[in-house]
This record gives sequence, C-alpha cells and structure tokens, in this order.
Amino acid sequence: MERLPGFRDFYPEPLPANEAWSCDLRQHIFARWRETARRYGFREYDGPPLEPLELYTNKSGAEIVSQLFNFQDKGGREVSLRPEMTPTVARMVATAERAYKKPVRWFSIPQLYRYEKQQKGRLREHFQLNCDLFGETDPAADAEVLALLVDSLRCLGLTAEDFVIRLSSRQAWQRFFEARGGDPARAYEFYQIIDKIERERDEVTAEKLRAVGIELADVQAFIAAGEPTPELAAVLANLAARGLRDFARVDYGVIRGLAYYTGIVFEAFDRKGEFRAIAGGGRYDNLVKLVSGGKVDLSALGFGMGDVVLAELLKARGLVPSFSGTVEIVVLVEEESLRDESIGIVQRLREDGRAVEFALVPTKGDKQFRRALELGARLTVRLQQSPAGVVAAIKSLADRSQREVALGDVVAACRP
Amino acid sequence: MERLPGFRDFYPEPLPANEAWSCDLRQHIFARWRETARRYGFREYDGPPLEPLELYTNKSGAEIVSQLFNFQDKGGREVSLRPEMTPTVARMVATAERAYKKPVRWFSIPQLYRYEKQQKGRLREHFQLNCDLFGETDPAADAEVLALLVDSLRCLGLTAEDFVIRLSSRQAWQRFFEARGGDPARAYEFYQIIDKIERERDEVTAEKLRAVGIELADVQAFIAAGEPTPELAAVLANLAARGLRDFARVDYGVIRGLAYYTGIVFEAFDRKGEFRAIAGGGRYDNLVKLVSGGKVDLSALGFGMGDVVLAELLKARGLVPSFSGTVEIVVLVEEESLRDESIGIVQRLREDGRAVEFALVPTKGDKQFRRALELGARLTVRLQQSPAGVVAAIKSLADRSQREVALGDVVAACRP
Repeated sequence: MERLPGFRDFYPEPLPANEAWSCDLRQHIFARWRETARRYGFREYDGPPLEPLELYTNKSGAEIVSQLFNFQDKGGREVSLRPEMTPTVARMVATAERAYKKPVRWFSIPQLYRYEKQQKGRLREHFQLNCDLFGETDPAADAEVLALLVDSLRCLGLTAEDFVIRLSSRQAWQRFFEARGGDPARAYEFYQIIDKIERERDEVTAEKLRAVGIELADVQAFIAAGEPTPELAAVLANLAARGLRDFARVDYGVIRGLAYYTGIVFEAFDRKGEFRAIAGGGRYDNLVKLVSGGKVDLSALGFGMGDVVLAELLKARGLVPSFSGTVEIVVLVEEESLRDESIGIVQRLREDGRAVEFALVPTKGDKQFRRALELGARLTVRLQQSPAGVVAAIKSLADRSQREVALGDVVAACRP
Repeated sequence: MERLPGFRDFYPEPLPANEAWSCDLRQHIFARWRETARRYGFREYDGPPLEPLELYTNKSGAEIVSQLFNFQDKGGREVSLRPEMTPTVARMVATAERAYKKPVRWFSIPQLYRYEKQQKGRLREHFQLNCDLFGETDPAADAEVLALLVDSLRCLGLTAEDFVIRLSSRQAWQRFFEARGGDPARAYEFYQIIDKIERERDEVTAEKLRAVGIELADVQAFIAAGEPTPELAAVLANLAARGLRDFARVDYGVIRGLAYYTGIVFEAFDRKGEFRAIAGGGRYDNLVKLVSGGKVDLSALGFGMGDVVLAELLKARGLVPSFSGTVEIVVLVEEESLRDESIGIVQRLREDGRAVEFALVPTKGDKQFRRALELGARLTVRLQQSPAGVVAAIKSLADRSQREVALGDVVAACRP
C-alpha cells in the first residue's frame, strides 16, 4: 500500500532510497524557527487543521479558493483542510484579543493543504512558519516582522549573499492605479495582473492591462523607478538601524496574489533566482474585521515561510547538518550474567539525560561494538568482573582510550 | 465565525476566558516527550495526516472504523484523516525497512482524528506520542518500550504514586479461550467482550460470554488470579533490573480493543482511577505483513499516549509549570533621539540568543516599565546620554539594582 499522491513521509536519517524527506532536517528547521521566534518575543499558537469552508471563500482571493482541499463532513458541514494559516489566526485573535496586550506577537508552524491537479513534484501539503503581529499600524511593526523573517533564515546559516527580501506596497500600486483613472472596483483584477507579470509573456500582460485602462510601459517604468513610499522608506531606515539593510530592496514587481493585503507586501527569494519564493507576507489590516463580522478591528501583518523551497535551498547551499550521533553511549553486554546489572546502568544513564542503546538480546561482542561505531556513539560502557567485584570499562570511541570505574561512578564518568 | 465542533484552538498563555487549551503546555509536553525518546535512541518520523481509506478498513477492528473521519477527495479517492498512527508506521517501515538496522526504534507525535457523534467535551482530534520498536520478538523489547512509556510520564513529573501500567497478554486470553473449547473464529469476538468487561453490567457480560461458550465466573477467576505468562514474567524481571518494577502490574482486565494485537498488551492509568486510560499499546507482530501484502514480515510493538487525558492529569496533580517570563529583556526607549541606537541594541541582544521586546512606537516610560514587569522580564536596558556619550543602564527587575555599561559591553552584561 502506498501513501496518497502529493503527500510526504518523513523518515529518520539515513534516508531510504527513493525517499527525499528527512524528519531530522524538518525538526532541525522547526527547532531553529521556534528559537528565533522566542528571541523576538513571539508566542506559539495553533488552530485546527480543518476549518469551516466559509472561512476561506471570498477572503483569500480566487487562486487559493480554486485549490481548496474541501469536502462535506459526515454531519453535512462544508469544511476544508486549511490552505493557509492567516484566516485561522485572524479568527483566533478576533475571538480572544481582549486577553492579550497589544501588539500581539504570535507564531505557528502548521501543516497546510491544497488540492490542485497532480504534477510531478508538486505537493498537496507543506509546513509553514507563520509569524503575525496584531495591533500596530506603524511601519515599525513591519520592520519588526521583516527582521524576524531575516533571522528565521539566518538561523539556518543563510546570509545576505543567499537571499533578499523584495519589498513592495499595495498602497503604491493602488495610488498608481487611481492616478491613471483606474476603476476602483477593478483594482484587485489589476493587482492580479501585476502578480503574474514575471510569469507571463509581455504581450499577454499588455493586453490584460489595456482591459483595465493601463499601459504596460507605464507599469514597467514604475517598477524600474522603484521609488519607495514613505512607509517603505521608514521600514528601510528601521532595518538599517538593526544592521539588516542589505537583506531588503524595494521591488514593485512583487504584489502578492491574495486579496486581503492592504499595505506593505514582500517576498523573500534566493539571490541566484534558482527557486520559487522562500517566504511571503504583508499587511492585512481589514481581515480581522471581516472574519469577526465587523466586531473586532485590529491591524495586522505577517509572513509565511514554507518548508519545501527552504529545504531545497539549504541542500543547494550545503547547509544541512549531519544528523548522526544522536545516540551518545552504547552499553555492551558481553557477559549475560551481568545483563541485569547492565540494564540497570542503561536506566541510570538515561535518567541522567544520556541517549543510550544496548543489544536487547544476547549478541556477539564484536557485532555490538560495530553497532556502536555505526551509530556514531561517543562512548561504550561494558560491565566486567574484576577481583574487586563488578566494574565498568568506559571506552572513548574517538581515541579508543579506556578506563575502569566503579559502578557508582559510571553516571558521572559518562557526562559530556 | 467559530471553529468546528470537536476541534481545539491552542492559545498562548495567559489563556483567554472560555479557552481551555494552552499551546505553551502542549509544547512543554511535546518537548519532554522528544527529549525522553532521544534518551532511548528513538528517532522521529512522520507520515501524512491523510491516508487511503483501505489502510484502516479491516485492520484496526470495528470500533475505530465506525469512527473514521473519511471522505472522497476531488480525484475520486476514498481517503481518511488518520485515526491512529500504527497503520501508517507499519506502511512506512514495510516500505523502507532494508535501509535500517534492527531493531528499528521510531517515535512520532501525530495529530489524530475521529468522527463520532458529538458529545459534551468529546474531541474529534488529539495529539498522541507514538513509540514503536520493530524487528525484535523477545520480551526484552516489550520491557524496553514499557520503560520508555514510564519515562515519558516521569519526565513530566508523574511518579509511581500517580500512575501504573496494567500489563496483560492476548496470548494468555487466547490460551484461556482455546482451553475451554472456544471457536477460534470467534476469538476476536471474545476479546471484544473482555475489553468491555469493566464498562458493562455483569449480567450483560455473562450473557455475551455464554454466547461464545464461556462462563463469567471462570473469566473473573482468571483475572483475579493474574498468573503471569512466561513472557510477562520476563518483562517484569527486566523492569525490576531497571528499578521500574513498581510501575507495572499484571492485570488481565485489560485486553485492548484493536484487532491487530498479538502478544503483550497494556494500558497506563492514574492510580486514583479518576481518568480514562493515559496510554495504551502492545505487540502487533502480523500488521506489517498485512499492510505490505505479505512482502515484509517484521515483528512490532508500541504504544500511543494522547495529550488530552495527560493534560487533565497534569493539571489535577499540580504539575503544569508557569509559562511566564519567556521574554528575558525589555529595551526601554525613553529618548526618541536614541531610538535607532536602541533598536541596534535589541538586534545585537537577539543575535546573542536573548528574548527581547521593546515598544515599537513612542510610549510613556512608566508604561514601558510596567510592560516589562507584566512580561516577567529579567532585565530592562535603557540607553541614555552621559558626559562620556551614550551608555546603557541595565536594571535587574528581581532586586531593582542598576548599573551603567558602555554600549559595546551590553550584550555580554545581559547574559544570564
């Protein structure tokens, strides 16, 4: 029996042939993300993987709705596996915002789902770091979130030579569109054209733009000028104060496809342009109000960073650490008469925090020792009879040096 | 808009009114579980939350199949949200077992789903620690897994006074049934009666037992005698060698409902009997073969421990730690002319590993200081002009002591 197409199994390393996804690498990324969010004072939350369908329809923009992994549950409810976390966090913060001091700084690492036509290598699920800040409209909040994005990549070894954040602004594009007499009711249609500009042939884009009354050359000149809005200028100055100016540049070629963005938007890319976007986000000051039926009005911004492109990038840049050596100590049982005492030592070592393996059943001594080497263990511990009673021989596998200690001293002698 | 019934939101502490589930507590439990699994040399894996429906039908036993959260996807596939992890891990290990040395020691912390009629307080999802060991038939493997179960509870502060593992054996019940002339084709029906014996009135049980040719008094006497099988005796001796004998007792009142168990089975309960089972598991030596269509034959055993009963038990025993004080330092910005330099200090402290907050926009000094107290911060850092230039005043919030240091010394001075 096989897993469903578009879903992943995550195996422990060393990976089996034909399996691409390492649970060790995944947990390494998650641990670094959590540690970075902690340094920024962001607190973890989570919501249900399954939500009412209506949480997504008409809120997220056409593209995501057409790819929803939705169905009717046994109680007749229209439900959907979550395609993104933003509507969930907007729902949660709208419900409970009175319990929290503003600004609210939250993060989560949800698994997200989409159902699109199966293509080679396209997945139907991924994990995503989501960081959001609620209750502050000042661009200082945008800079805080962008700094967190930078450090969520730097914590994995990536540098300003590896990635850059392309900063843009829905407001800049809104003003552009309005200044040229664009119909406000068609603004979102216009944004969608800009969103596809880099993936579409110029003739196609030009025709679509003409339909909303805009010239392609005008759009291209606006992008080329890249004149920062006052909000973007404030964000860049703030990043400069943090020493992070090199990680961002104004680039109006980015606008983001989702409908709910209202202000600054951004995407992170690898500098070599080999991969799809690493992360993306922006301001969505109206979504909490929309999701709460007008009851709660709370400004918001955030970003999502997926695990798939990131893992590809880390592999391409040689930034995946080795995951061997998770077992520190192998207790060798060469004398079956000493098995019970050996098991007692295993237990005491584990209680002291050591990662310990041992042969569960009688096994040849050299096979046990080879296993210790394969595991990349630091030490072996072997009980043996001596004239003075049972003692422990502790061997360092780095230099093969060995020493004998009394049973009561084994735990202390095995600490790193 | 509200979340779906039976699903949980996990909020950061302090919890809002009407919300019961703390993401901080959840992550505390997960972190302790991971650390304990590491000490036992267990490696993390994960599989898809959605699996082909046929992975569960006819493998898990009637009870779980009737509660599947299943549906047809847009491609016409019959699929199910995973109700348990064992069929997934059996599928994964069957696919890739040649890549791993035996015994294979794996763990995972999946979210699991069931669709049952909505009752007050009954959830449709929970998280579960799953630990499994493949490729070893000796009871020493059962003891290793049971020791891991004990330590997965002890790592949260629970002791032998709080919980006990009730150890039983499918083989013991099989021999009992066969010795009394039971029809082997009805053995699973008999196990199901035993599984419900503690929740059912005696008259009902007696009638059901008579239908399979067994007397209730005979069953009651067998449970009361609690004579360990040779396998159970070996497990108890092994636990004794680890100093864990007090955590387990033979109790044939447990048999487990799932169809796939073949050997030793067990459940962990709180000693006061206030809660449902904390954890359960056993040996399932035939499931890998069944799931792999006969291609791979690998003995197996493991357990699952859910987060819901465990969280209730930890709360009842006063074992939930405080989750305040995650922010270590608040940088106070009292002079707006020093904002940029203050932001630079924030960044350097975070790069050194400190958890730091600051007021993103101009805020009254006393309000900033109150916020530091609310957050349970350890230190405040405030830049100020001095005759020698800008210096940092570092205040300890424990004793309100304060000292001034040069800007270049702030990072070192703020380390714990």
